[in-house]
Amino acid sequence: MKSRLIASLLLATAAPAAAQTSITTLAPPVVADPRVAALRDNALHNDQYAWDIVEGLTTEVGQRLVATEAEARARDWAVRKLTAMGFSNVHVEPFEMPVWTRGFESAEIVSPFPQKLVVAALGYSGSTGPEGVTGEIVYFDSVDALRAAPDSAVKGKIVFIDHHMMPAQDGSGYGQFGAPRRQGPTIASLKGALGIVIRSIGTDHHRNPHTGVQYFTDGAKPIPAGALTVPDAEQLVRILKRGQPVVMHLTLASQKSEGGHSGNVVAEIPGRDPKAPILLVGGHLDSWDQGTGAIDDGAGVAITTAAAKHIMDAGRPLRTIRVVWFGAEEPGGFGGAALAKAHASDRYAIAGESDFGADRIWRFSSQLLKSDPAAYAQLTAVLAPLGITKNDKGEADGTDVDPTIQAGAPWISLNQDGTRYFDWHHTPDDTLDKIDPEQLRQNVAAWTAVLATLSGGIEPEPKRRSRR
Amino acid sequence: MKSRLIASLLLATAAPAAAQTSITTLAPPVVADPRVAALRDNALHNDQYAWDIVEGLTTEVGQRLVATEAEARARDWAVRKLTAMGFSNVHVEPFEMPVWTRGFESAEIVSPFPQKLVVAALGYSGSTGPEGVTGEIVYFDSVDALRAAPDSAVKGKIVFIDHHMMPAQDGSGYGQFGAPRRQGPTIASLKGALGIVIRSIGTDHHRNPHTGVQYFTDGAKPIPAGALTVPDAEQLVRILKRGQPVVMHLTLASQKSEGGHSGNVVAEIPGRDPKAPILLVGGHLDSWDQGTGAIDDGAGVAITTAAAKHIMDAGRPLRTIRVVWFGAEEPGGFGGAALAKAHASDRYAIAGESDFGADRIWRFSSQLLKSDPAAYAQLTAVLAPLGITKNDKGEADGTDVDPTIQAGAPWISLNQDGTRYFDWHHTPDDTLDKIDPEQLRQNVAAWTAVLATLSGGIEPEPKRRSRR
Repeated sequence: MKSRLIASLLLATAAPAAAQTSITTLAPPVVADPRVAALRDNALHNDQYAWDIVEGLTTEVGQRLVATEAEARARDWAVRKLTAMGFSNVHVEPFEMPVWTRGFESAEIVSPFPQKLVVAALGYSGSTGPEGVTGEIVYFDSVDALRAAPDSAVKGKIVFIDHHMMPAQDGSGYGQFGAPRRQGPTIASLKGALGIVIRSIGTDHHRNPHTGVQYFTDGAKPIPAGALTVPDAEQLVRILKRGQPVVMHLTLASQKSEGGHSGNVVAEIPGRDPKAPILLVGGHLDSWDQGTGAIDDGAGVAITTAAAKHIMDAGRPLRTIRVVWFGAEEPGGFGGAALAKAHASDRYAIAGESDFGADRIWRFSSQLLKSDPAAYAQLTAVLAPLGITKNDKGEADGTDVDPTIQAGAPWISLNQDGTRYFDWHHTPDDTLDKIDPEQLRQNVAAWTAVLATLSGGIEPEPKRRSRR
Repeated sequence: MKSRLIASLLLATAAPAAAQTSITTLAPPVVADPRVAALRDNALHNDQYAWDIVEGLTTEVGQRLVATEAEARARDWAVRKLTAMGFSNVHVEPFEMPVWTRGFESAEIVSPFPQKLVVAALGYSGSTGPEGVTGEIVYFDSVDALRAAPDSAVKGKIVFIDHHMMPAQDGSGYGQFGAPRRQGPTIASLKGALGIVIRSIGTDHHRNPHTGVQYFTDGAKPIPAGALTVPDAEQLVRILKRGQPVVMHLTLASQKSEGGHSGNVVAEIPGRDPKAPILLVGGHLDSWDQGTGAIDDGAGVAITTAAAKHIMDAGRPLRTIRVVWFGAEEPGGFGGAALAKAHASDRYAIAGESDFGADRIWRFSSQLLKSDPAAYAQLTAVLAPLGITKNDKGEADGTDVDPTIQAGAPWISLNQDGTRYFDWHHTPDDTLDKIDPEQLRQNVAAWTAVLATLSGGIEPEPKRRSRR
């Protein structure tokens, strides 16, 4: 670039009045704050906090299904951990919600080719009871094909929705291709189906089914609803292609009850100015029950908490940093709604979350582009050395912070590379070994840079807090 | 290479008496028989037989656990298929053996961190009964560490053998690293252990356990013996590293009974000379019960049968080609032993099998190197365009043909690339999607070339057999 720069300078000198754009006529350069860059690089090279959290949580608690005793143990673990790390005002903000748990599960082809397929109930599936149900399979290649079918084609049968989903860096596809899971069970139920199985919403080829939430709406009565693994769905398609009626015995003996408990775990680094708008970051503590919730979302709470801890280690920020380990995200953001309601009078300078695994952050976007262009330019400069590009067309995302953003908080999104994410998402394979420690540190470095940039300034404290 | 060749020729002309080796003083060139090369290339580009077999067998039968009704259905399927393809003398050669089947399985950490791990019983595991057993975990990093331990360290506990296994192209490692599975249960039992779990003998990081055979020998009484998945074994190591006693509740409710039936399915292309030594090829029909036995070993029967079919399509070989879909390989080669015994008076020109998946064949070796160097040279020449190198130091391998080779048959080994093989071996993930059709065709081309080269000559028949 050096020779081009010199050429430009010479050109600018030689023809100062030319209409063409030259480097010297662009906006003034934005250079990253060297103190922020130093914090970023320390996190990038040395962070151990995030690994320590996600390794500890997934090992010492494991899966954390919402409203179960496992999620309660996770809250206890979180309070101990955050307190030991030196956070202030560590507490649980509880709320109630239903409990749904998985029971015995089996999907057996009875005829024409007897064999067992691997299935997992979708969240809030109806139960077959332990004896299961038996019905003929009726095939649809999309949720719209099911919607278009006459009731008579579906009634008393087990619906199978096939579909395709390819890996995408930005995770696009989950919205569209998640429809069979979100809408399929209700549509099938309203048409009188005995049950439904879908091809897992996933991009892998392992015998691990992808669960996930669905609700029966529009007056639909709950029916058994499960996800076959991708290889099993492909097997079912091959069996169906032989042209004979295919009969399945499906058992999804799940259970649901009211009156469960969940809650958000909240921790803070108190700012020097208690009245300054708050920086809100976090991830969700609950997980599905098949894996240990490492990428979804042990990593998210680990990354954002580690970033806050790096600020704490450097001193005291002007603004309060609030870290939230949200409860009950998987069933649809109960924790996020509870937080927004409980803190409706709080003012925020930013709200953001990490909930897309632990692979490298590749771009970011923020409302600050319009509301605070100088801060946005600073973020652009300090994130670029991590390989993170700005995305001026980005939008807010994140189930947990969404209600707070809807209530007026400015948003920031740091987008992880999602190419591998839907290989493991909501499966037994969501385990610690899927996290690459080097990419995890890049995540921590990015969030550290964001918090430092927006902190209002960090002042060294005369006496340091206890560290762990 | 052209310039080096010319230089060599010039050098040879200029200094004919020089002691140095030059291209012109090497052995006469061996050129592949063009008729064999044509058959090879037709299989490489056009083969559909192998996919048709492995797709059909894994779809229409699925898993084929030895001595169960599923293996019996597979034999029926095989007889129908081989007959439809035009093979002669298609028949089953039955034998008896015990039946072992999997029951409910669970490995639950009771304390200090309650959570479920994913486990599968090893073949011929003892049963815990449906109620399971509970015991403290005692850790060993190898089977030798277990062997060296005093009985008092093991008695009444659940042994856990950790170990490592890395992918290797030639599959080396399975012998050494399979020891925890093969020997661990017997050693643990003799020392008074309540049960044993091992880290799966596998190279993947998915929640799919690798089963496989083991036997209780030396008077050891059967105890429950299971394999944890690799991520679960790593989780258990992390839990153990916390230093507290770890208690597991293990349920492996498997069942064993005598008087099961297995058998070999035999098919032939009768040679023009019924007295000429036979070409024996095949794979095994039985599989473990978790996957559909696509790579182990639906692919093997598909590849060798497809190759024989390409010879049949070309005409009638001088030598009889015998294709065997062996039964009961997984429990230790019962089918291979039965075949060698039943055909003790038959004479063979070659014996070889395919039982290492369906990835590209990268080298071959054969006893013909010494017993028939001209044939070995022909094989070297005709396999080279497939990227297959000769391995003059190779040895016979293959559980099914081993007894026949031990009885005097010359051997040939075509080695598949095993880099991915132990990711899926003996797991639920052994399914059709793991087979790459292009690499499968390369396998068929190689075996077609071998059979054509050793056939004694193929003569077109006036009237073609029915094809399917």
